[in-house]
Amino acid sequence: MKAEILCVGTELLLGDIVNTNAQYLSKRLADLGISVYHQSVVGDNSERLKKEFEESFNRADIVITTGGLGPTPDDLTKETGAEYFNKEMVLHEDTLSKLKLHFINTSKGELKGNNIKQAYFPKDSLVLPNDYGTAPGCAIEENGKLLIVLPGPPREMKPMFENSVVPLLKKYSSEILQSKVLRICGIGEGIMAEQISDIINNSTNPTVAPYAKDWEVTLRITAKSDTEENAKKLIIPVENEIRSRLGTHIYGEGETSLEAVLAELLIKNNLTISTAESCTGGLIASKLVDYPGVSSVFMEGAVTYSNDAKIKRLGVKEETLEIFGAVSEETAKEMAEGIAKTSETNIGLSTTGIAGPGGGTSEKPVGLVYIGLYINGITKVKKCEFTGSREMIRRRTTITALDWVRRELLEQYK
Amino acid sequence: MKAEILCVGTELLLGDIVNTNAQYLSKRLADLGISVYHQSVVGDNSERLKKEFEESFNRADIVITTGGLGPTPDDLTKETGAEYFNKEMVLHEDTLSKLKLHFINTSKGELKGNNIKQAYFPKDSLVLPNDYGTAPGCAIEENGKLLIVLPGPPREMKPMFENSVVPLLKKYSSEILQSKVLRICGIGEGIMAEQISDIINNSTNPTVAPYAKDWEVTLRITAKSDTEENAKKLIIPVENEIRSRLGTHIYGEGETSLEAVLAELLIKNNLTISTAESCTGGLIASKLVDYPGVSSVFMEGAVTYSNDAKIKRLGVKEETLEIFGAVSEETAKEMAEGIAKTSETNIGLSTTGIAGPGGGTSEKPVGLVYIGLYINGITKVKKCEFTGSREMIRRRTTITALDWVRRELLEQYK
Repeated sequence: MKAEILCVGTELLLGDIVNTNAQYLSKRLADLGISVYHQSVVGDNSERLKKEFEESFNRADIVITTGGLGPTPDDLTKETGAEYFNKEMVLHEDTLSKLKLHFINTSKGELKGNNIKQAYFPKDSLVLPNDYGTAPGCAIEENGKLLIVLPGPPREMKPMFENSVVPLLKKYSSEILQSKVLRICGIGEGIMAEQISDIINNSTNPTVAPYAKDWEVTLRITAKSDTEENAKKLIIPVENEIRSRLGTHIYGEGETSLEAVLAELLIKNNLTISTAESCTGGLIASKLVDYPGVSSVFMEGAVTYSNDAKIKRLGVKEETLEIFGAVSEETAKEMAEGIAKTSETNIGLSTTGIAGPGGGTSEKPVGLVYIGLYINGITKVKKCEFTGSREMIRRRTTITALDWVRRELLEQYK
Repeated sequence: MKAEILCVGTELLLGDIVNTNAQYLSKRLADLGISVYHQSVVGDNSERLKKEFEESFNRADIVITTGGLGPTPDDLTKETGAEYFNKEMVLHEDTLSKLKLHFINTSKGELKGNNIKQAYFPKDSLVLPNDYGTAPGCAIEENGKLLIVLPGPPREMKPMFENSVVPLLKKYSSEILQSKVLRICGIGEGIMAEQISDIINNSTNPTVAPYAKDWEVTLRITAKSDTEENAKKLIIPVENEIRSRLGTHIYGEGETSLEAVLAELLIKNNLTISTAESCTGGLIASKLVDYPGVSSVFMEGAVTYSNDAKIKRLGVKEETLEIFGAVSEETAKEMAEGIAKTSETNIGLSTTGIAGPGGGTSEKPVGLVYIGLYINGITKVKKCEFTGSREMIRRRTTITALDWVRRELLEQYK
């Protein structure tokens, strides 16, 4: 079963927005075991859109469109679909009532003119309800060709896909695909790939595919079988082998994040943390606060950008700053200890470094960062030399710092 | 002159990555006055790629590809391009020497096997140097058809496009397009569009196009003319009219950001700032630190997530927290005053709110945020009611807070 994704919208062709819909749909179709060999983008133009329908259906059995369902005359994906399938547009009473109600509730006055257009659909199509907007989608099947028409805004498209399209597509897929994603940190893609290259190269069912982004790597293990259960069974031995080789480099699985894993680890072990940030400027604190339940363990963050603040807030000694400088092992150590002491936390985490673009010297180049970690009386300092832009250096420092705390806790609190 | 963008890569079809290349190239081609009516994505498959070349060149004069230039047998964009144009692949000596040098410098050993592939190009093509990777791009022109082959990684593709492709494309565009982007904050897209709807609707040269993202709106004014100077002249009266209507809602123009504008305003007026964040958890500090020169004015940030930290760090009174709660006008006021006092800064900025998803009550629902702003002896508090996810509420609070400081400074330091 082959599908194509066809995104409609002049704003995409002008580069005003990034096409995240194509990515979302491609990923979900891969999960469902439906192959995608082609994605296209065309503007809000009936003639070009109709041509694209012809070309896409020459190559594939299923075409999924996004965009062009709004109330303006520009929006014509449904209308062009009807034309392609030789169907007339008919009124969908249920949608009309909902639209009328929406206009009353939002005090937009009486439903009229172009807005009524959103209640018309190609004859014989299945209307897909939109719980987050006024434009429903639809599905038309004819002569073994299935056209699925979805709205453009991701917050409307995604729930419609999950709630209405996934059940529809399941009958087109004879096999079940099951994936498991392992999340890896603190090891480069190259080194990781070497350690498990035989598994990546020799596995066919399940397949093992690495993907790197910044300083994180994900490993997707995907198995095909007749049932979900059997597919899951195929994953287990491969996952176990990968886990035995990569150990604590694997920080989590599925939809999680480094900060969530760390927050859960802190909560589980009843350990409090505070942060003292210079070059990361609040990024570490902000990451921790991303996790909703963090307030029970994250006590305080200090962004001590100036020397003055380092002295007053954290008790860093003036001599330390004078002799070793703000970017030094000694300062990182005193920062971590200082924040843990004044916040009375088990853990104090500090960063100080040169994020650039200016401020570097031959002795202390841009990218030099010290991370300080105080845990229950013992302080360690890690020296890092990062490359990249100011933003990259700050992000890499943040990931490295969070990952370091995670690893230390795993070792000390087994 | 019509162009198409053709991105090559199975990782795009699997939804492993978002296609930011298509957006970047579309936007830049629009800037250059070259129309894009079509974007496509195909996998690393020679047959399908060749078919796509045929279809694309049927519709357009220029096809720009990204991806498929690596050293593996999978990477075959150049080879398929050569086949399409009936050209043989020939060795490019200059690229070969550079590759050899790279292998020596990075201790990868001797250049061999597949890696030599990167030094071969279709006969008669122009080789486009890659300053950030080992795979050069190339351009082939034949019978009025121009194929431009670029690498997939954005950090390699973008500089190659700017340095080698833009000069090449300029000769294909008879008109000069000149754009000016105005950046707007603190006013919704709808309200803004109403205030200048006549300008948006009636302008043809220049055109005026709004685009909204989160709580920021950009307005792109684009003029066409025979020279850059004449195009710029066409923009002036329209820009002036928009500025007279939107006033300080316009915070900047071109490639800038709200935090950069605020940092420059602080530096210009020699004003120091410190932040005390609860619900934003360091996001405001982190935004300010995004601006490289901020260290002279940004003294300190405190992430006081716990009540304890609010009392100890900022001197918020225990009674205030008891009587009014942590999320209250009174607490926001004391936080802003406290951080300014202890950091000895002119300005203290605070946030306290309920970012969700839990923690809301009927009296204090999720999305309720207080922002406190102390400037030289006077403290104001702004009450906001935001909607959206935890992340959205935190980001909106950050933008609103930074924008508020900007507006206050513009009023007080004219």
